[in-house]
Amino acid sequence: LLQKDYKKANGNDMMAMKIKDIGGEFKLIDRLSDLVHTQNASVVVGIGDDAAVLETAPEATTYLLATTDMLVENQHFTSRWSGPEHVGIKAVESNASDIAAMGGTPSWMLVSLALPETTDVEWVEVLYKGMATACRRHGIILAGGDTTRSNTLVISVTLLGSVPKAHLCLRRDACPGDLIMVTGTLGASAAALTMLESGHAPSDYLLTKHRAPACRLDISDRIAPLANAMIDISDGLASDLGHICKQSRVGANIHSGTIPLHPDVRQAGSLVGKDPLVFALGGGEDYELLFTITPANRDKLIKLGIDGYVIGEITVDPSFISLVDHDGHRRPLSGGFDHFR
Amino acid sequence: LLQKDYKKANGNDMMAMKIKDIGGEFKLIDRLSDLVHTQNASVVVGIGDDAAVLETAPEATTYLLATTDMLVENQHFTSRWSGPEHVGIKAVESNASDIAAMGGTPSWMLVSLALPETTDVEWVEVLYKGMATACRRHGIILAGGDTTRSNTLVISVTLLGSVPKAHLCLRRDACPGDLIMVTGTLGASAAALTMLESGHAPSDYLLTKHRAPACRLDISDRIAPLANAMIDISDGLASDLGHICKQSRVGANIHSGTIPLHPDVRQAGSLVGKDPLVFALGGGEDYELLFTITPANRDKLIKLGIDGYVIGEITVDPSFISLVDHDGHRRPLSGGFDHFR
Repeated sequence: LLQKDYKKANGNDMMAMKIKDIGGEFKLIDRLSDLVHTQNASVVVGIGDDAAVLETAPEATTYLLATTDMLVENQHFTSRWSGPEHVGIKAVESNASDIAAMGGTPSWMLVSLALPETTDVEWVEVLYKGMATACRRHGIILAGGDTTRSNTLVISVTLLGSVPKAHLCLRRDACPGDLIMVTGTLGASAAALTMLESGHAPSDYLLTKHRAPACRLDISDRIAPLANAMIDISDGLASDLGHICKQSRVGANIHSGTIPLHPDVRQAGSLVGKDPLVFALGGGEDYELLFTITPANRDKLIKLGIDGYVIGEITVDPSFISLVDHDGHRRPLSGGFDHFR
Repeated sequence: LLQKDYKKANGNDMMAMKIKDIGGEFKLIDRLSDLVHTQNASVVVGIGDDAAVLETAPEATTYLLATTDMLVENQHFTSRWSGPEHVGIKAVESNASDIAAMGGTPSWMLVSLALPETTDVEWVEVLYKGMATACRRHGIILAGGDTTRSNTLVISVTLLGSVPKAHLCLRRDACPGDLIMVTGTLGASAAALTMLESGHAPSDYLLTKHRAPACRLDISDRIAPLANAMIDISDGLASDLGHICKQSRVGANIHSGTIPLHPDVRQAGSLVGKDPLVFALGGGEDYELLFTITPANRDKLIKLGIDGYVIGEITVDPSFISLVDHDGHRRPLSGGFDHFR
């Protein structure tokens, strides 16, 4: 009766649209954002960056940062290849990476678990030991959460932190002429996953990068005061650079030969018959930082002992991103990961 | 191979314990809290109250509040009886109720959705319209979130807010001699659910209380400066009063005749052949506030135009909670809801 009322009231006889019909996850977020208030004076940056930037008090010297990620079993991780300790580490590191990408420091974590009734207590305890490992690394305190029952195992992590107002790094602040840099080699997580899925045994290096990555909070606080735009690489270089370019209304040239690849990623490419660049461009979950910086500030960064990799430069053409090959050929950069496409 | 390694390393051949074997949800939370750092100087109150209380800066005049709730389809709501708009309202109100119970005001919300691939876009949009309704009511801004795919529909809401330091209300501050009060009638949500499950049609009043309740942010800011301990009634009066008594190391007498019941709840009891008190004591999700207050401050509350219901008093006997019947008989108060028992 009640369900029917709802359907009638909402004209549900028309053809039902699925999420992929409207263009996937990011389009859905756009549509939903239009329905709810997403802006007021206290929201410095809301939906659309790695973390929300919130003003707790005008006289405060820092902004509050808040980010959240949901991990679903067999979607974000599988017990075939990851033990609960790895899942716990990755759950914390992926959120901490979002705080790092804003130039901030994480402080407090809330964790909600939806667990099947048949879940072993030990599995959950080892999951928490993994979270504890990553929390200890970054000085994060578990401050709350929720536990409930579900058919599917879901872990939702919210991480709160802060950033000195002057050090805030957004996606929208890239400038033409900026160098494009990454903090480390790319594609290891995707290479490991491809190997596992095709029956190959990945190296320890690749396996760790996939199962229990570490975010770059070790250097993000020194990069943030000098960088213009910053994002963490969670969806793949192509997709994440796309976010910076779109929000900054700029373009980019990426020189394919300069994209740093670990020898094990190259070897994985040979083994599975794929160009290893595909892992770097389209594979997510590297949790390195991608940032743009003026050449002058890049020199300062080197003086701070932080090297990183220059992979291209920001251009004036809005949203036009080229991958420039060794021989000078250009092609549009594409790739990235969408949960609903 | 890898999974086997994990099992071997963790001695998983021993009998696997399930969550219900260790005593359910609250025991699990206790065990998990021991594994991770949950305290430092910035955490005023961590796990174990309605929201985490966090110190963003010592010179700030307010504390940051953070709470999170996870809603799972067919566990917390069912499409048989609730449309997406109701689910959206309830998702926000249940979290806002936690902020109200601390004496605070909500400001920012993060929403993560795990959606089956077959979810109608319209369902999600109407869910967001419901959230927007409740957000508008309380001045809450949607500041971020995450969207992903899952077999089970899961909604995770994190709500951030603030409370003037002097107005903070914790579960642990009840004092012997305090009056025990509730802000409204109890049991309507549970009565509605029981009727629906047994094929009866609940009244509009009961149905709204079940599907789209409203939290008590309308009066919580006037109660908080005067109350000693406060909690919102989400698990049922018995369970939630139990939390106050346990954390305050006090006991309580509740006078059954004074527990406020709406006429429709009494009628629901007759229809389904249940003592309507059972709905109030054991049924959750009323989202009224339960607080303790000195008799002198209760008089001040009345002068502010807030009446409420006195249902008992705090006693010195730690954790001994009695339900005193009309004829003076006492029995231990029990009830409440645990997802894993």
